[in-house]
Amino acid sequence: MNPIFLKKVLELYILEDSYFSDITTEAIGSNRKVTGTIRAKEDFMLAGSIFIEPLFQIFGRPYSVEIFKNEGEWIKKGETIAKIEAEDRVVLTAERICLNILQRLSGIATKTRNLSNLIKDYKAEIVDTRKTTPGFRFFEKYAVKVGGGVNHRIGLFDAALIKDNHIKAAGSIKRAIEMVKRNCSFTTKIEVECENEEMVAEAIENGADIVMLDNMSVEDMSKVIKKFEGKVIFEASGNIDENNIVDVAKTGVDFISLGSLTHHACWVDINMKLE
Amino acid sequence: MNPIFLKKVLELYILEDSYFSDITTEAIGSNRKVTGTIRAKEDFMLAGSIFIEPLFQIFGRPYSVEIFKNEGEWIKKGETIAKIEAEDRVVLTAERICLNILQRLSGIATKTRNLSNLIKDYKAEIVDTRKTTPGFRFFEKYAVKVGGGVNHRIGLFDAALIKDNHIKAAGSIKRAIEMVKRNCSFTTKIEVECENEEMVAEAIENGADIVMLDNMSVEDMSKVIKKFEGKVIFEASGNIDENNIVDVAKTGVDFISLGSLTHHACWVDINMKLE
Amino acid sequence: MNPIFLKKVLELYILEDSYFSDITTEAIGSNRKVTGTIRAKEDFMLAGSIFIEPLFQIFGRPYSVEIFKNEGEWIKKGETIAKIEAEDRVVLTAERICLNILQRLSGIATKTRNLSNLIKDYKAEIVDTRKTTPGFRFFEKYAVKVGGGVNHRIGLFDAALIKDNHIKAAGSIKRAIEMVKRNCSFTTKIEVECENEEMVAEAIENGADIVMLDNMSVEDMSKVIKKFEGKVIFEASGNIDENNIVDVAKTGVDFISLGSLTHHACWVDINMKLE
Amino acid sequence: MNPIFLKKVLELYILEDSYFSDITTEAIGSNRKVTGTIRAKEDFMLAGSIFIEPLFQIFGRPYSVEIFKNEGEWIKKGETIAKIEAEDRVVLTAERICLNILQRLSGIATKTRNLSNLIKDYKAEIVDTRKTTPGFRFFEKYAVKVGGGVNHRIGLFDAALIKDNHIKAAGSIKRAIEMVKRNCSFTTKIEVECENEEMVAEAIENGADIVMLDNMSVEDMSKVIKKFEGKVIFEASGNIDENNIVDVAKTGVDFISLGSLTHHACWVDINMKLE
Amino acid sequence: MNPIFLKKVLELYILEDSYFSDITTEAIGSNRKVTGTIRAKEDFMLAGSIFIEPLFQIFGRPYSVEIFKNEGEWIKKGETIAKIEAEDRVVLTAERICLNILQRLSGIATKTRNLSNLIKDYKAEIVDTRKTTPGFRFFEKYAVKVGGGVNHRIGLFDAALIKDNHIKAAGSIKRAIEMVKRNCSFTTKIEVECENEEMVAEAIENGADIVMLDNMSVEDMSKVIKKFEGKVIFEASGNIDENNIVDVAKTGVDFISLGSLTHHACWVDINMKLE
Amino acid sequence: MNPIFLKKVLELYILEDSYFSDITTEAIGSNRKVTGTIRAKEDFMLAGSIFIEPLFQIFGRPYSVEIFKNEGEWIKKGETIAKIEAEDRVVLTAERICLNILQRLSGIATKTRNLSNLIKDYKAEIVDTRKTTPGFRFFEKYAVKVGGGVNHRIGLFDAALIKDNHIKAAGSIKRAIEMVKRNCSFTTKIEVECENEEMVAEAIENGADIVMLDNMSVEDMSKVIKKFEGKVIFEASGNIDENNIVDVAKTGVDFISLGSLTHHACWVDINMKLE
Repeated sequence: MNPIFLKKVLELYILEDSYFSDITTEAIGSNRKVTGTIRAKEDFMLAGSIFIEPLFQIFGRPYSVEIFKNEGEWIKKGETIAKIEAEDRVVLTAERICLNILQRLSGIATKTRNLSNLIKDYKAEIVDTRKTTPGFRFFEKYAVKVGGGVNHRIGLFDAALIKDNHIKAAGSIKRAIEMVKRNCSFTTKIEVECENEEMVAEAIENGADIVMLDNMSVEDMSKVIKKFEGKVIFEASGNIDENNIVDVAKTGVDFISLGSLTHHACWVDINMKLE
Repeated sequence: MNPIFLKKVLELYILEDSYFSDITTEAIGSNRKVTGTIRAKEDFMLAGSIFIEPLFQIFGRPYSVEIFKNEGEWIKKGETIAKIEAEDRVVLTAERICLNILQRLSGIATKTRNLSNLIKDYKAEIVDTRKTTPGFRFFEKYAVKVGGGVNHRIGLFDAALIKDNHIKAAGSIKRAIEMVKRNCSFTTKIEVECENEEMVAEAIENGADIVMLDNMSVEDMSKVIKKFEGKVIFEASGNIDENNIVDVAKTGVDFISLGSLTHHACWVDINMKLE
Repeated sequence: MNPIFLKKVLELYILEDSYFSDITTEAIGSNRKVTGTIRAKEDFMLAGSIFIEPLFQIFGRPYSVEIFKNEGEWIKKGETIAKIEAEDRVVLTAERICLNILQRLSGIATKTRNLSNLIKDYKAEIVDTRKTTPGFRFFEKYAVKVGGGVNHRIGLFDAALIKDNHIKAAGSIKRAIEMVKRNCSFTTKIEVECENEEMVAEAIENGADIVMLDNMSVEDMSKVIKKFEGKVIFEASGNIDENNIVDVAKTGVDFISLGSLTHHACWVDINMKLE
Repeated sequence: MNPIFLKKVLELYILEDSYFSDITTEAIGSNRKVTGTIRAKEDFMLAGSIFIEPLFQIFGRPYSVEIFKNEGEWIKKGETIAKIEAEDRVVLTAERICLNILQRLSGIATKTRNLSNLIKDYKAEIVDTRKTTPGFRFFEKYAVKVGGGVNHRIGLFDAALIKDNHIKAAGSIKRAIEMVKRNCSFTTKIEVECENEEMVAEAIENGADIVMLDNMSVEDMSKVIKKFEGKVIFEASGNIDENNIVDVAKTGVDFISLGSLTHHACWVDINMKLE
Repeated sequence: MNPIFLKKVLELYILEDSYFSDITTEAIGSNRKVTGTIRAKEDFMLAGSIFIEPLFQIFGRPYSVEIFKNEGEWIKKGETIAKIEAEDRVVLTAERICLNILQRLSGIATKTRNLSNLIKDYKAEIVDTRKTTPGFRFFEKYAVKVGGGVNHRIGLFDAALIKDNHIKAAGSIKRAIEMVKRNCSFTTKIEVECENEEMVAEAIENGADIVMLDNMSVEDMSKVIKKFEGKVIFEASGNIDENNIVDVAKTGVDFISLGSLTHHACWVDINMKLE
Repeated sequence: MNPIFLKKVLELYILEDSYFSDITTEAIGSNRKVTGTIRAKEDFMLAGSIFIEPLFQIFGRPYSVEIFKNEGEWIKKGETIAKIEAEDRVVLTAERICLNILQRLSGIATKTRNLSNLIKDYKAEIVDTRKTTPGFRFFEKYAVKVGGGVNHRIGLFDAALIKDNHIKAAGSIKRAIEMVKRNCSFTTKIEVECENEEMVAEAIENGADIVMLDNMSVEDMSKVIKKFEGKVIFEASGNIDENNIVDVAKTGVDFISLGSLTHHACWVDINMKLE
């Protein structure tokens, strides 16, 4: 993330939690240096440790951060992830935000990696969606990458995705693609959400870069992918989970998107102890 | 939520997703009025519907919102939650944020209600924590209330919670409470995190309003609560889940806090269809 | 104050005064180091000196600040409070904001201390109100603490204060307290504004933490406080000043709130000389 | 004030007080329409009533505001200043900010008018300074105008004021004026702070538009003003109060600046009652 | 543009110009309705008229806007483009910003159309660059589209463009493309800046979507395009102007980018008269 | 420019271009130090080099900037202007914004100097207008000064300019000046737009500081200036360009304003090479 953008977002998170003051710490905290040790309380894949340093930098007070593990590394329960040395008032105020980021992101990375492992023998890659927590998307999408997934578009601004309602509004897939081409940058990929072979054919004919096979059966996907192989990128989407992901991967699809990477990932257990 | 604050936060969420433009919708969308129907795709407790109207208001275009269900009402799969009538370009751009809020908040309310139902025969009430998604706390805490839970402090600014590290920094519980009283408003409650009876005794003696029984055994909690009954509010915290919550409630504790209300709640399934 | 919050507020104050430029200083100022000496021009209690260092830090240029007096210390006319060494263009631009903060805050601390001295033989403590200058509240409330006063709630967000109009809207004190308990955090204290003994009784019965005795006569206050001693915290409010504060303190009340701490405090005289 | 600027500043004031919520009102308030009546509790000159309407508009809810008095009008104790009809939750949340603005601004206007009345038989006009409360300057300067005073420069950005330290940095008044002329817009007036006749002479010779007679005796001022009459605008500044302002006015000076207009003005007493 | 984003940017422009007040208009302006008529003072292609209505809406006062011409329409000297009816103080304050937007954007559209007309018999389309005025890019890129051009990426965030320095940092084109694919969304197009046939070959082999032919001769471009026809999108870039654009188009290139669309476009002459 | 203001504006420019990330550089860039050399690709007058250092400082990473030329110095094609050493990812992300600022500002300075050279034998000085690119005014006005021009008022807030529509609204020039004097600071200059001798006479009589001779013939200007010499500052405005500027200067006017300084200035050619 752009360092200026990151700083602004982290400041918002600190202000959300502290507003004008961490009143307990302001009453008791001091300039005394303490060391906070961040430890895993269960096994998981680490994500988010790159944000620890920028978080503590924001306070504008002397500090040092030591990270012992790599992003994307599997951590065992009890292992030390990082040590932060800073004034106790800084550590006490920043502790929860720091952990909230690590716990949420590591949870997403772990879930992503577990799912992508299931299909590691196939071409298909795991992809996220825009089903992210409002205000925290950029971090959640980053965690998917750490977990071995691939990002779908970041938001509504960096790729065109023509959905059923866009097609209805435009009149046809052909017309919708034309309208997007006229309005969007030529550097923008165009994806079309398709529900059957006919739609796929029309999308490809008119220059779609990616076709989303939306809620199609494994059989229909296989057929369509075989028929149009090499002509477009295929993304499978809709109701895919642990149980059917391998079948979907077997269709030869390029990308499989799962909202559950973000909306069904639980936090992992991490804590910080002060010495 | 304060309407001015709410507007500013919702604007941030829209800008996060769209930045300068929803490029697909800008290419294709129009002023044509459409109706988006929000429907449940599984059973759950509804939370977040009060944010639909402010979200659509922000776009500054004509719209109407009709809500068919109440916050905190159990929704059955297939039921209609709300209908929004607005220009297609507004509905297409706002759809995902609207659903992200509803799905996440309803997931939290549902989890909260299910947990609080387990202890409905006891005095104890369910309480949330500061383990919330950065940037989305106020919404998540609201959903806990909808689900029948009670909020713990909103952030570091609205109540004093003296933790182990604060006690260490101050030298003793007595000294820590004194420091907080001198610095904080007399309208601020003071809670002390205690690990044993001695600490509880010291906290109560020095005027704590609330004692957090942190990671204590059910037996120890029972004993302490009996001993100091009526002298302070008791909150049980640490490693409490579906399996032991009833035992904890039986101790006579006033509040039981669970990070899992927010960090282990999954999204419920809701979609929007346009006509 | 949270250092990130403080920085943002100080930046607003600098931009209010300078907008795009201090045009005189931009024309004439240079990188030449100068020393600004801040001196008292009358006797007063010092408050605000902790903001000098953060203020100069914001400019992002080399500087050093030396503070010779403590917050809450009585300063004599002619004494040196602080010395700042920095580039002349920084000192010239920051001078007035620095003095505005010191003069206003020291004025409030002085007034607060003078009033609290009047009742130093009684239990009662002096409390501020929300009658603060818009945009400057956190600083003004801080000065009250420096002057030996206690803060009332910081704003509408950190404690519940049920006033006459809330009672009317709810239907009764009982109902109002119930509604607040259901909606607010259990860590939030509830205060009820009462005008007579009956209201006080109802407030206490229903669990109020604090009772505000609003515009009651000294006799009535004495009676009520005696009757309900130990059951609640009592705050006296309304038309209290130098003339009657001792009488109010004699009632045994816990806190006495005075809007005049902030709205009738005048600035003390402080200047800065450059060498 | 520019309506967009005004809206942003008023929003800051509301957020300062309420942050995410007026928790009491959110628990109890409703959509029920109430009427708030603003009344004078002492005699004063009114200022700030023009901000009532924009303040209530910000909440984005139905409201009506009726103002019964004019800005700058003398109000008698007990008179009604304005009536606001809006939902009770809006009125309860906005009440204090509304009053804080009115009480502070009316206090300044009243003080200004009382001082300017003292010299109403002379040419001299009363002028404010940059000694304003951080974050509230534009409002305070507005109140001075309502009270019959004249504004000095609004901030460091809209006029050049060459002070002793600027003169030292530049080397001479001549050089300082040259530097300002080269750097600032030709539409900018240049004022020079002078302590004696020689400095005044140098300032005028080099094109100063205004000369500030800083802390000079009444005799010296008279002499200088007579000598250079018609060649420049004269402003008297420093240690001027009720006791000596008439003597200063008699010197023939054009403007008399007093920090006390803002820093020694107390709030007037105004309240709001709900029906 | 997203309406929320647009509102925020237009507010910044108004505040840049007015800060706290349009002081002349505040002194003289009133609620009197006036009609401002916007007229062309030379011939040009119109762009920017869609921003007039949002600009006046921001002031929050009654207004009506009537637009007589279409975006992208050729306007003749003397023709009326739009009429705005609003309070005189609103029209006087908004006038210059309104014209600045129209004059700059129409200038860009006109230049773009003139250049694209030169190559209207060829496949090639005109493309803009990131050489835009800081703070005004989204408007300038919009004007290029109105003028019949196509947008290149909007910023650094919505497409990957691998330049010579990226290739050096990565070690090779192959490695650079791999790194981008691993880090960026699969919905992101990848463009590679190439200076010769070898680089083009390596870029295509490794999956580049677009090849920028950077500062290559017309002959070299022709050769390369012929050789790799249909395998990639070709963009010609560097030192292209009125004199050689037809020759470049003849090479069969898909897109021709010109910084001059934005950095050598002059404003057209438009004024507003009040009745 | 005020360093805090400058930082905020530069941050906006970086975020405009990068939003959440420079995705190419984030994929490929590293901490490796590189040196970027900024060179002139044509002859021009340099402006904007003072912003290079603050721009790189914002990234919060180690860097050094060396500037080899002075603001306002004539640069020859091929000469080195500056060298920046920083991490490659910082240089790659900041490069375009850095050049956009330099190219645009140097273009304005060059045009301004060329025009002012034409009239260097006359008293008249070149003045800019408010016809600047929205969001970039402070930089463009700065470049005019570098090129030897003088700034007109910066915005609507720092000087009063009474135009035809203000006169109409007020009823007469006399009345308009009175209204401005009553409302604006006495430190504010008042300029009146005049179209003939009568208007000039009325403006001067009533205390205008500056008279703008708007679209008057050279003959009429000469006459008016002669008649009222020494009584007011004269500014010529409207349809002045290279062809008639000398004639206008000959009238004895003090300032000549030209919108073309900003709206007809083209960018100069500058690039950055990395080693």
